[in-house]
Amino acid sequence: MSSDSFDGGELAGARCVVTGGLGFVGSTLVHHLVGAGAEVVVIDALVPEHGGDRRNIDGLDVDVWECSIGAPEVADAVRGSDIVFNLAGQVSHLASMQRPLRDVELNLTDHVSFLETLRSEAPQAVSVLASTRQVYGRPRYLPVDEEHPTSPVDVNGIDKLACEQFHLLYSRTYGLRATILRLTNVYGPRLHLDRTDQGFLSVFIRRAISGDDIDLFGDGSQERDCLYVDDVVGALLAAATRPAAVGEIFNLGNSEVLSLREIAELIAAATGTRTQVRCVPWPDDLERIDIGSYQGDFSKAERLLGWTPRTAFADGIRATIDGLTWSPSST
Amino acid sequence: MSSDSFDGGELAGARCVVTGGLGFVGSTLVHHLVGAGAEVVVIDALVPEHGGDRRNIDGLDVDVWECSIGAPEVADAVRGSDIVFNLAGQVSHLASMQRPLRDVELNLTDHVSFLETLRSEAPQAVSVLASTRQVYGRPRYLPVDEEHPTSPVDVNGIDKLACEQFHLLYSRTYGLRATILRLTNVYGPRLHLDRTDQGFLSVFIRRAISGDDIDLFGDGSQERDCLYVDDVVGALLAAATRPAAVGEIFNLGNSEVLSLREIAELIAAATGTRTQVRCVPWPDDLERIDIGSYQGDFSKAERLLGWTPRTAFADGIRATIDGLTWSPSST
Repeated sequence: MSSDSFDGGELAGARCVVTGGLGFVGSTLVHHLVGAGAEVVVIDALVPEHGGDRRNIDGLDVDVWECSIGAPEVADAVRGSDIVFNLAGQVSHLASMQRPLRDVELNLTDHVSFLETLRSEAPQAVSVLASTRQVYGRPRYLPVDEEHPTSPVDVNGIDKLACEQFHLLYSRTYGLRATILRLTNVYGPRLHLDRTDQGFLSVFIRRAISGDDIDLFGDGSQERDCLYVDDVVGALLAAATRPAAVGEIFNLGNSEVLSLREIAELIAAATGTRTQVRCVPWPDDLERIDIGSYQGDFSKAERLLGWTPRTAFADGIRATIDGLTWSPSST
Repeated sequence: MSSDSFDGGELAGARCVVTGGLGFVGSTLVHHLVGAGAEVVVIDALVPEHGGDRRNIDGLDVDVWECSIGAPEVADAVRGSDIVFNLAGQVSHLASMQRPLRDVELNLTDHVSFLETLRSEAPQAVSVLASTRQVYGRPRYLPVDEEHPTSPVDVNGIDKLACEQFHLLYSRTYGLRATILRLTNVYGPRLHLDRTDQGFLSVFIRRAISGDDIDLFGDGSQERDCLYVDDVVGALLAAATRPAAVGEIFNLGNSEVLSLREIAELIAAATGTRTQVRCVPWPDDLERIDIGSYQGDFSKAERLLGWTPRTAFADGIRATIDGLTWSPSST
């Protein structure tokens, strides 16, 4: 399939690259792409702290390149691709504060190298970057739309925002046809549970499965809109196949907004353990980069991508817990 | 002088670091600081394309460290400083597009290293970052105030914006007391004239001195507010000595707004050569990153820094040409 004719959601035979394709969202996307008959190339550096795992794509016929997206051999991996789903990067906000230069490398410098590679090896490719609501920083108003000022409150947010801008620049200037999706808290069966710095959902689920109590910082009233991973995959596919997406930024979000306390209680209930939800004071290092409540306005994605999230949190969290391969004894 | 007592514009005895201190604006600042009795440390990598020159501070009693601000030895250079004027970086927009990874290094990675160094070696220092109006991209309205969305149109603008955000993050999180000044086109006697990628003022002045015609892209009607370097130095000093500046971003600008054609004609007249001003079509690579007309709203700097530009363009350009050491035969 040539990239010129790619416009209708028909993935069969499309050559798709997924960076970070051994991670949580990336591997879930790979399963969908393979199921749709796409030819899939995965690039993943398997940075130990990032939670990528080859077992996430066990049994799939996929070409895996175990290297950084900034590595020279990536030229061979991406050559002639139709669609590039760019999900590689570091997610942890705390890690980004502890090692800022490493975050610059992972979330920015490597991506600039990768864009240069795409520019020479796959100039016609559609590319979809997974970014984060964190680029907005502390919301000035809710729900946050794409016109909300960007004012990141941590290193990760700064680097992801610059990464977005590089994608848009290469789209405007060199015709790379890039689209940005700003994700909010994503959960699902392949969520990394081995680490404490991959977001609160990961922490809550792990503690609940283990029967440990869940600590909420402050009073637990901060609100979040969470996304089940299949809904995010739907958005990634829509962004890759709708011409109207090119050069645009889209919030993903959910009209179901829950407090951290409600989220924790739903998770505890779904696991059926004795987990209790408790409130504890904020640790200093986290309070400084907290953003309060957040809800994304995703009406632009509804309008231009035809996308809307379909999974209620209670259903999604049940599917997540049922689908987990992780158990307390597996760490 | 301890940094705690530093609040009134009294520079005598203050330990001041100027990064990029051998360059055009940096060296002009150094002259002012030495004249005010400050103890001055210059850090400058003398990157050949950036135009820094030791002759810019000839005869001054200044401690010069010839190294990148990202180098380890910078720890010794900045230890215990009261004020850090951070002017190091790459200015050329065209160079940033040609070598994007190099611009990321010079305008972002090195600055993150530098902030880490300040955090450990000079945690009480006031720091003033010279940024650029280029972070706004193509203006949505004029004059552009600090609330205008940031949407950089080239690599340089992306990296400078991220650099700003790192300074503000370190100010909020680690108490570094950073201030950002967004400069617009600066001119003055030490302007680099040897290269063609240091801004249009440099090109216009060089051609006029040489008696060559000045080419304007398009119709020359794009407007700019230019700043004489002494006015910029005044803003840098105000930013360093006004407590209200900490954690804030300020536009510098000028209420005297001139078209490129008017600017070219004033320069040609000031040099007294036979230079003619002509209009030519836009080169592709420059048109793609052009931002149209620009004027900065600097009322915030007037209000909080007590700063206003004092030099009319006709006077400033006369002083510039009279003060130049460059001549056509010196290249």
